[in-house]
Amino acid sequence: MTTFAETTDAQLTDATDEATSGPSNAEVSAADAAVVFHSWSKQGGLKPLPLAGGSGTTVWDHDGNHYLDFSGQLVFTNMGHQHPKIIAGITEQLSKLTTVAPAHGNATRAEAARLILQRAPEGFEKVFFTAGGADANENAIRMARLVTGRDKVLSRYRSYHGNTGAAIVATGDWRRIPNEYATGHVHFFGPFLYRSEFWASTPEEECARALHHLERTVQAEGPESIAAILLESVPGTAGIMVPPPGYLSGVRAICDRYGILLILDEVMAGFGRTGEWFALDAHDVRPDLITFAKGVNSGYVPVGGVIISSDIAHAFDDRVFPGGLTYSGHPLAAASIVATQKAMAEEGAVENAKRVGRDLLAPGLAELAAKHPVIGEVRGTGVFWALDLVKDPQTREPLATATVAGIKSDLISRGMLPFATDNRIHVVPPLNVSDDEVAQALELYDAALTAFEG
Amino acid sequence: MTTFAETTDAQLTDATDEATSGPSNAEVSAADAAVVFHSWSKQGGLKPLPLAGGSGTTVWDHDGNHYLDFSGQLVFTNMGHQHPKIIAGITEQLSKLTTVAPAHGNATRAEAARLILQRAPEGFEKVFFTAGGADANENAIRMARLVTGRDKVLSRYRSYHGNTGAAIVATGDWRRIPNEYATGHVHFFGPFLYRSEFWASTPEEECARALHHLERTVQAEGPESIAAILLESVPGTAGIMVPPPGYLSGVRAICDRYGILLILDEVMAGFGRTGEWFALDAHDVRPDLITFAKGVNSGYVPVGGVIISSDIAHAFDDRVFPGGLTYSGHPLAAASIVATQKAMAEEGAVENAKRVGRDLLAPGLAELAAKHPVIGEVRGTGVFWALDLVKDPQTREPLATATVAGIKSDLISRGMLPFATDNRIHVVPPLNVSDDEVAQALELYDAALTAFEG
Repeated sequence: MTTFAETTDAQLTDATDEATSGPSNAEVSAADAAVVFHSWSKQGGLKPLPLAGGSGTTVWDHDGNHYLDFSGQLVFTNMGHQHPKIIAGITEQLSKLTTVAPAHGNATRAEAARLILQRAPEGFEKVFFTAGGADANENAIRMARLVTGRDKVLSRYRSYHGNTGAAIVATGDWRRIPNEYATGHVHFFGPFLYRSEFWASTPEEECARALHHLERTVQAEGPESIAAILLESVPGTAGIMVPPPGYLSGVRAICDRYGILLILDEVMAGFGRTGEWFALDAHDVRPDLITFAKGVNSGYVPVGGVIISSDIAHAFDDRVFPGGLTYSGHPLAAASIVATQKAMAEEGAVENAKRVGRDLLAPGLAELAAKHPVIGEVRGTGVFWALDLVKDPQTREPLATATVAGIKSDLISRGMLPFATDNRIHVVPPLNVSDDEVAQALELYDAALTAFEG
Repeated sequence: MTTFAETTDAQLTDATDEATSGPSNAEVSAADAAVVFHSWSKQGGLKPLPLAGGSGTTVWDHDGNHYLDFSGQLVFTNMGHQHPKIIAGITEQLSKLTTVAPAHGNATRAEAARLILQRAPEGFEKVFFTAGGADANENAIRMARLVTGRDKVLSRYRSYHGNTGAAIVATGDWRRIPNEYATGHVHFFGPFLYRSEFWASTPEEECARALHHLERTVQAEGPESIAAILLESVPGTAGIMVPPPGYLSGVRAICDRYGILLILDEVMAGFGRTGEWFALDAHDVRPDLITFAKGVNSGYVPVGGVIISSDIAHAFDDRVFPGGLTYSGHPLAAASIVATQKAMAEEGAVENAKRVGRDLLAPGLAELAAKHPVIGEVRGTGVFWALDLVKDPQTREPLATATVAGIKSDLISRGMLPFATDNRIHVVPPLNVSDDEVAQALELYDAALTAFEG
C-alpha cells in the first residue's frame, strides 16, 4: 500500500521476513499487556498494537502489516524511524562511553548543548539537560521561582506540560485534575478563535482580548507573586492552536511590565515541527527559558532540557542550583542529539517541513475540509496540523471521543497510524516526509472520512 | 596503577591513544562548563573532570589518566562501564526499532518487565516504566493516592527521592527546602543508631523507638489522611543506613494497621547493590510498590519505573490511570534492561557483590577505621558502604564538607574516583568489581586518609 524509498527496500523486506518468522501480533500484544502498565489508560482489556520495526515514515508490526506513520508516535519522530545517521551517532558513542555522572564533563554533551544553542534566539547561553519534557518544565519553573523569589506560575487551560508534580499541575487539560498536589499554579484562557472564550470574531480581536484577559489575571493574582508565565509556543496535544500574530510578543510585554519571566515550552513544537527551528521563530518574541525534548533527537534516547538565557544562567554562578538528576547530560542521549541536529541541518529537514506545510498540507487539508463537513476547522503550520472534528459545523459541537476512536481504528486498518485525541486528528508526520507519502495520507484521511460519513 | 582484565587491555590502549590525540582535559572541561548547566551546583568556576572512556571499574580522561571508579558515577554503574553484553543488547535494538510511543506494544519492553518481575517478591504483576527514579516515585505516589483516596505521604528526613515536584518534597535532605511547592508531604525520623534521634543505645532499642515514633506520627497526622509511607529500603545518598532487623517489617505492620500503602524506593539500593537482588530481600517485608532506576540497566540508557503489586495494578483495570510519559517503555531502554538483567544472572554479579561485601569490604573497611580515627563509623552491605567521617570520635561531630572535598581531590589525584557527600565517603564499586580492585581501593583510601591525618 505504501511506497518506500529505494534505499530502504531491502531492509524492509528483510525485516518483514524476520517479523513473520517471529511471534505474532497477538502474542506480543498479550505478553506486553500482561506485564506492562500503560500511560493514561484503563489497564483492563488493553490490546496494544505491537510495533516490530520501522524505517522513515513507515512502521510494521509482527504480522507483517505496514503502516504510514503520521502520528510521529507521540509527535516526536521528527526525523522518522531508524534514521541511519542518528543510529550511527548513537552507535559511535556506545563504543566509547555510554554513561557518566552529570558532575563530570563530557565532550559529546558539550557538543549537544552547543548545537542546541546555535538554534536558540540571541542571548541564550547554557543548556540544562533532563530526561524528558516534564522534568524540563519542572526545572524551568524552579529556575524562575528562585530567580524572581516569587512562587506563582501562570499557564493556559488548553495545554500539556508533563506528568510530574509541578508539570502536571501547570498542565491545563483534564489530566491535571486528579493530580493537584502542587502549589502556586494559576490557569488562564489563551487565544483560540474557533472556540473563543472572549466572544471575538477576528484574529486581531481574539489576540487583543486574550492579552487583556491575561493582564487582568496577572493583576488580580498580584503581579509581585508571579514568577513565570509558562506557555507552549504552539499548544500541541491541546489542539495545535498557532497563536495569532502579536500574541506571544504581547505576553512578553506583559511579563516585562510586571517583572515576570516567560517560559516557552517547545517540547512538541520545537526542532522543526512548525517549519521553523523553534516555533517561537515565527513570532517576534524572546523568552527567558525554553524547554525541549521529543524532536531534539527524534525520541531515539530519552532526553529533554532547558535552554537558559544568560541572565538566568549567571544568577546561579555563586548560588547552588537546587535541582538535578542522575541522567542529566547522559552521553548516549547527547550523541543522539548531536547526530539528529547535524542530520536535520544537512538534509534541510526544517525547510522541507515548511514547504510541505505550505504547499501540500495546507491546500490538501483545506480541500478535505471543503469535502467533509465533519471537519470543523483545519489549523496548523509545517508538519503540525489539527483536524477539529464536529457534529455540526454550525454549532461546532465536538465529535465524541469514542467516534473519533472509530475513525482512528479505520485508518489503522487502512494502513496508517494516525494521531487522535479528544475530537481531533492531528496530522504530524516527520519533517522529512516525502511528497508521495503526504499524497497517500491525504487519500487515506479522505477514504476514512468518506466511510465515516457514508 | 590499575590492572585490567586481559580482554580489555587492547581496548584500553587504543582508547588511550585516541584520547591523547584528541582534545585535552582543559579543553573539554572548558567547552562543557561554557554551555552545560550542572545539577546541584554553583555554575561559576566549574571545572568538571571530563571522562573520555571506560571499561569495567576503570574510566579515563582526555589527558590519558586512568581512574579506579569506586563512585558508580552516581551509584548506578552496577555492571561497570561498557559491559560488552549490555552494549550488544542496545546495539541489537538500535538495528530494529529505537523508539515507539507507550501506547503501542513492544516485545523488548514486555521482556524487560518480565525479567524485572522475576526478581520482585511474590504478588507483583506489572511494571510501569518511567525515564528515571524521580518520576518513578512521582507515579508510585500517584498510584497510592488514587487507590487509597488519601493525600498524605510520609517519608524520612534522611532520604532522597528525586528532583521533580512531589519527589523532591518527599525527599528529606536539604535539597527539599528550596523546592517546597508540593502538598501532602510529612517527614519523620528513621532508625540511625550512630546518630540516634531516639536516645537509643542498641539496634533493638533504636528499632523499637523508631517504630514508636513513626506510629505516633501516623496517629498525630491522622491515619485516614495517609496514602503511603515512602522509604528507601536502605537510604543511599543520605548515608547508607541499613535498617535494623525488624524495622521494615514493623513499618509494614503499621501500614497494615492503618490501611496505608508501603512504597519502597530501590532506585539506588536495588538490583544487587546490597548483595541481594532487592535490598528488601534481606528484610521480612512485602511492599505494595517498588520503585527502581539506576542499577536496573547500569544507567546505560535513562530509565526507571514502578513495580506494581497485583491489587494496585488491577485497581486501574476499569479506571484510567492519570499518569504517563512519552518515553514510558522506550525500546532502547528496555533492551538495556534485558541485557543487563541477563548478564547479572549469567555472571553471578549479585552473589559477587555479597561475597565482596562480606569477605573483603567489611573486614577491609573495619581495618581502615581501626587505623584512622577520622572514620567514626563504617556501615553497609554488599557493595554499598559509607565511611562516616568525624572531627572527633567521641562527639561524632561530622567532618566539614569542604574538608571531605579535599580528601576527595586527593583520591582523584591518586587515580580513584570516590563518591563523597556531606561528611562521608561512600564505597560503591560495581557488583562485578574484582578482588584486586578492592585491594587497590583499600590502599588508596588508606593512603589518602594517612595524608589527611599527617
